[in-house]
Amino acid sequence: MKVKCTLSYDGSRFSGFQIQEKGRTVQGEIEKVLRKIHKGESIRIYPSGRTDAGVHALGQVIHFATTFSLKEADWKRALNAMLPDDIYIKAVEHASDAFHARYDVMEKEYQYIVQNVVEPDVFKRQYVHHFPYALNVAAIQKACSYFVGEHDFTTFSSAKSTAKGSKVRTLYEVSCKQEGNQLIFTFRGSGFLFNMVRIIVGTLLEIGQGKRRAEDIPTLFEMKDRRKAGKTAPPQGLYLWEVVYDDR
Amino acid sequence: MKVKCTLSYDGSRFSGFQIQEKGRTVQGEIEKVLRKIHKGESIRIYPSGRTDAGVHALGQVIHFATTFSLKEADWKRALNAMLPDDIYIKAVEHASDAFHARYDVMEKEYQYIVQNVVEPDVFKRQYVHHFPYALNVAAIQKACSYFVGEHDFTTFSSAKSTAKGSKVRTLYEVSCKQEGNQLIFTFRGSGFLFNMVRIIVGTLLEIGQGKRRAEDIPTLFEMKDRRKAGKTAPPQGLYLWEVVYDDR
Repeated sequence: MKVKCTLSYDGSRFSGFQIQEKGRTVQGEIEKVLRKIHKGESIRIYPSGRTDAGVHALGQVIHFATTFSLKEADWKRALNAMLPDDIYIKAVEHASDAFHARYDVMEKEYQYIVQNVVEPDVFKRQYVHHFPYALNVAAIQKACSYFVGEHDFTTFSSAKSTAKGSKVRTLYEVSCKQEGNQLIFTFRGSGFLFNMVRIIVGTLLEIGQGKRRAEDIPTLFEMKDRRKAGKTAPPQGLYLWEVVYDDR
Repeated sequence: MKVKCTLSYDGSRFSGFQIQEKGRTVQGEIEKVLRKIHKGESIRIYPSGRTDAGVHALGQVIHFATTFSLKEADWKRALNAMLPDDIYIKAVEHASDAFHARYDVMEKEYQYIVQNVVEPDVFKRQYVHHFPYALNVAAIQKACSYFVGEHDFTTFSSAKSTAKGSKVRTLYEVSCKQEGNQLIFTFRGSGFLFNMVRIIVGTLLEIGQGKRRAEDIPTLFEMKDRRKAGKTAPPQGLYLWEVVYDDR
């Protein structure tokens, strides 16, 4: 039987999602709990995709296979009782054997929060990107529209990416709204490359500062060269907001 | 020359304000920076009062004496450049030699935030008290009024308090407002005893649950017995909001 979980985590004390030799990871913590529940048997979990160190999730999705037969509410209660308090399982559903949290993704949504004020806020330092310089929000909003649609995102993904194959992705929404002193960026798309959201945000902030023009984005796409885009925005402003599957 | 600083800190990674043998403290971090600035000379800082492990501050005030002559803006810049990112100096003022951050306090304000929802929020776990049970807010608000004025707060302070002398304090405001799923408690008074705000909040939450009646508070004051009051609410919901001095 497969179990599908929707979870949130505060990324600030994790060395990312994926299990690794050193460092505390989301996968490591969840698999540790599943091993206890399964009396020492190792259970592998599969996420919709990894998140980097410091990146947060409100709607990450994982699945795992188990021979344990528990009601959905009991899975939720058992997992939350044993997990550390920076991971929270929001929902558990029984899934078909064919379900795969990564391969079945229809759409993903990320949000990125920039706090555009001079003085930093100690309570937000791990949860927003503090950006103290003046920004032209209208220029950023104009630039957002250039990212919507199907594009080869080579320029806007990490050159370190190990992903083989096409770097063509389709974005359904790229938007920026101002709420008080915060800029909230929303990205919805069929899939995202390594560091893609953070590189786009870094580029949009340079446009907001007047260092680049929105009209130059089509040329950046054509260049297929990561070095032509802006800096990678820091991880703490990024949230994996929602993962959408076919069953919805 | 005396220097007065107003600062905020995120208490979640500190073992409290006051320096101690083990554990990271706000005082320890600030004195370390001051020692560097003063080329190895130890500089003692004096706060308006201590805060416990996990308690936050938006408007803590400290002073220290120095022979260094720097402009206020330069002190602020130098301190913030060297301090860790969970402490932020919001303002620096030159103060008279007679000024003392603790003895000259006229009024202090604390806020306490309760998040009254069933499901915990991983992003708030260090910044609010998550309280999943139903609360009668009107009963809490009625009970708040009983704490206003001059009272002997022995029942509502830690029995472990080492404070000698009178436990009589005057509260100018005790209020509770509802904002979405949060209850925000405000306490303004001439001074506060050890754990006083947290014990009052713990008692108010029991009243909100119907375990006690607002009308019983006068009797609790008379008993002068910590064991008769409610549980001490946890530190992460508590914020030292503002310290007021005569010069304002």
